[in-house]
Amino acid sequence: MEETREILSSLRENLENKDWHAVRTIVADIHPADALELITELRTTERVVVFRLLHKRIAAEVFTDLPPDQQSILLELFTESQTAKIFEEMDPDDRADVLEEFPAGVVRELLSVISPEERDMTARLLGYPENSAGRIMTPEYVEIRPRMKVSEALDHIRKTGQNKESIYICYVIGPYRKLKGVVSLRDMLFAHPDALIQDIMTSDPTKANTHDDQEDAASTAFKYDLIALPVVDNEDRLVGIITIDDLLDVVEEEATEDIHRMAAMEQLPESYFNTRLSVLFRNRAIWLLMLMVAQSISGVILKHYETALTTVVALIFFVPMLIGSAGNTATQSATLVIRGLAVGEIDIGGIWKVLMRESLMGVMLGVLLGLVGGLIAYVMGQDPRMFVAVTLAFMLTIFFANIVGAFLPLVFKRIGFDPAITAGPAITTIIDITGLIIYFSIAAVVFNLSA
Amino acid sequence: MEETREILSSLRENLENKDWHAVRTIVADIHPADALELITELRTTERVVVFRLLHKRIAAEVFTDLPPDQQSILLELFTESQTAKIFEEMDPDDRADVLEEFPAGVVRELLSVISPEERDMTARLLGYPENSAGRIMTPEYVEIRPRMKVSEALDHIRKTGQNKESIYICYVIGPYRKLKGVVSLRDMLFAHPDALIQDIMTSDPTKANTHDDQEDAASTAFKYDLIALPVVDNEDRLVGIITIDDLLDVVEEEATEDIHRMAAMEQLPESYFNTRLSVLFRNRAIWLLMLMVAQSISGVILKHYETALTTVVALIFFVPMLIGSAGNTATQSATLVIRGLAVGEIDIGGIWKVLMRESLMGVMLGVLLGLVGGLIAYVMGQDPRMFVAVTLAFMLTIFFANIVGAFLPLVFKRIGFDPAITAGPAITTIIDITGLIIYFSIAAVVFNLSA
Repeated sequence: MEETREILSSLRENLENKDWHAVRTIVADIHPADALELITELRTTERVVVFRLLHKRIAAEVFTDLPPDQQSILLELFTESQTAKIFEEMDPDDRADVLEEFPAGVVRELLSVISPEERDMTARLLGYPENSAGRIMTPEYVEIRPRMKVSEALDHIRKTGQNKESIYICYVIGPYRKLKGVVSLRDMLFAHPDALIQDIMTSDPTKANTHDDQEDAASTAFKYDLIALPVVDNEDRLVGIITIDDLLDVVEEEATEDIHRMAAMEQLPESYFNTRLSVLFRNRAIWLLMLMVAQSISGVILKHYETALTTVVALIFFVPMLIGSAGNTATQSATLVIRGLAVGEIDIGGIWKVLMRESLMGVMLGVLLGLVGGLIAYVMGQDPRMFVAVTLAFMLTIFFANIVGAFLPLVFKRIGFDPAITAGPAITTIIDITGLIIYFSIAAVVFNLSA
Repeated sequence: MEETREILSSLRENLENKDWHAVRTIVADIHPADALELITELRTTERVVVFRLLHKRIAAEVFTDLPPDQQSILLELFTESQTAKIFEEMDPDDRADVLEEFPAGVVRELLSVISPEERDMTARLLGYPENSAGRIMTPEYVEIRPRMKVSEALDHIRKTGQNKESIYICYVIGPYRKLKGVVSLRDMLFAHPDALIQDIMTSDPTKANTHDDQEDAASTAFKYDLIALPVVDNEDRLVGIITIDDLLDVVEEEATEDIHRMAAMEQLPESYFNTRLSVLFRNRAIWLLMLMVAQSISGVILKHYETALTTVVALIFFVPMLIGSAGNTATQSATLVIRGLAVGEIDIGGIWKVLMRESLMGVMLGVLLGLVGGLIAYVMGQDPRMFVAVTLAFMLTIFFANIVGAFLPLVFKRIGFDPAITAGPAITTIIDITGLIIYFSIAAVVFNLSA
């Protein structure tokens, strides 16, 4: 951090003095991740200059990782040759990733400046559905043949591997480009140079289909500790591989999406600071309004019990505590189930096991919180009937909240929705309304009130 | 899934028929991840048999990934030689990971059955603090010297690399075992065989210190797209490396911890089904009770406004909607900040930028929700004063909720607590209480009531 600040200030000084040579020296051996940090701190005009002085490989990687709105601004300021150089140098999957954010006209224009070969590769990737394995795979892998000797394969890697994203796993291709197996560079290194690839390869390797969901591809890869996952088409022909850095991005995005949905938001299209305030506002306001309108039902319920409320006004004192505790309980059990589903520990088949467990837990929590809640109510009002009403209401509501919290994510998963939506605000709203009905029904009996 | 079920049923059949040969064939080439799935489905006595028939390398990996209570049960049933074989075969970092769950007496016993060399390695790892980089590193890496030729280094890898966890990155060691640089197998493969390692290595590589936090080590590695991170001691001597599978585990654990804390729970010591109900109950109940007692303050506030409530009973109708919406708003902004902190986009230095942004957002959300809330109140009661009171109370409360939601995680981060604790239930409770005070203060003025 300290170091970055020093580099930044000397970079700025040299930019002001137009000492391009010094700037070039500073950014010569920089890691793309560090270059990105520096670039983010610079003004747009300074950025354009630095991009020109960066090594083209680094320039391509930094550009890829910038947010789309900043990419747009830079593209307007770059010369055509600068744009061409950056886009030509990108990995095909990164290029597809960048281009999918731009309107079709801009995409056509950008594709026209790069070589036909790179253009074709990118167009093919863009043809796969969003969030599919095909979209994030790279066609740049090392392929070898089953009848090659290990020494021939190693020579082949030396000859063709220079520009491939990953060479540590090689893919063994049979007739019709079908994927026959994989073999690691490690295994080749330890094998006899005259051994045949088909004798040392792993046949029938773990793979994904181009149309598979990215998340499924990632969890398969992590389950088997793979550093790259081959992707085949419907005819089992190898068309690309997904490298571990892209798989990691999928996992991180997925965690972010889950966490946002658990707080009643859609995932932001960009990172926090890069999302425009209007976009964020719309995203948040839609959810808040929907929940608020749902919540207004609680007003209708309270109005229904107006007479009871005026007769025993103390009843109202425990409403926030009751619906708050019930919401917290439901949030806990929903979160446990959502996380269990996400990491693959819970599946739809285990639904009864979960419900049994959470029923028992609901009874335990209900009894504990009910007695404590009743005690608080008694201390505040010295009325034994209040103790009875609050205790019973807590027990029932907490039990109910715990079951619904566990059940709803499973239902959502079953009908094909994201279970993460059910946690937090959504479940709290449902529980609030139900809790009120339970509470006043019990109170009406205990205090012998008519609604 | 389908396939696993078939394998499982044939495995069970053969176990019942005591056809050990058939069982051995089934588990001969199995991947440890699949073996783990199978083992989990078997009864304890069956597990013991399968463990004996598994290849020792696979047995070691499967055993490592079982939950501690199931490890204990198996250890009581294993023969000493079976235990020795499994523990001898484990990677030192996995062994340390397994052992840290057992009492000291058992650890001593288990360490006594393995070779002195492996024992020393494990004891050293166990000497580092929990959650430190030293704890998850493996001492099994390939080291080379700066003056080696590439061809010599490759021969050296062939000779010494067979049992190393990772050979794709080699570590260049100078005098006193100081880490001079790293060189990838890829670079060696593409370099001239006579080139010197010191001329092709990356000097001053990214590294971690043994006492660094595991999370920091992981985020460094992912920032620079590393597949292994070297770990040095305070004298800059290389003592181990952390491989990417262990870094991934750190990230997944971290995400789980965050998500649990956002729902007011501590992270479970085990996975959901493997956590005993009593442990889970204690974990959940402590948080629920603390929040409930805090929530009971809302009862005191409502009691304080008892006269106002009996005079204008309709005021109570909008309490759940108000505190619900405010809680949802705070949950959203807290989540945005917590996630921003977790992925490194927001840091403490950016506190003012966040607060500026969320103040503006608070005004926008407050106005929108205030007007809609006021409208709902007016429709339900036809009282223009209710419209005024509810609109104003919503505006102020939502604004306040949005700021507190953004601010509290930043404060927690600053004072060294986990910001994730502040989301969800915790912030909802604070906002509930404040919202009530704001609402009744405004209502008292609008309806000209005395408390």
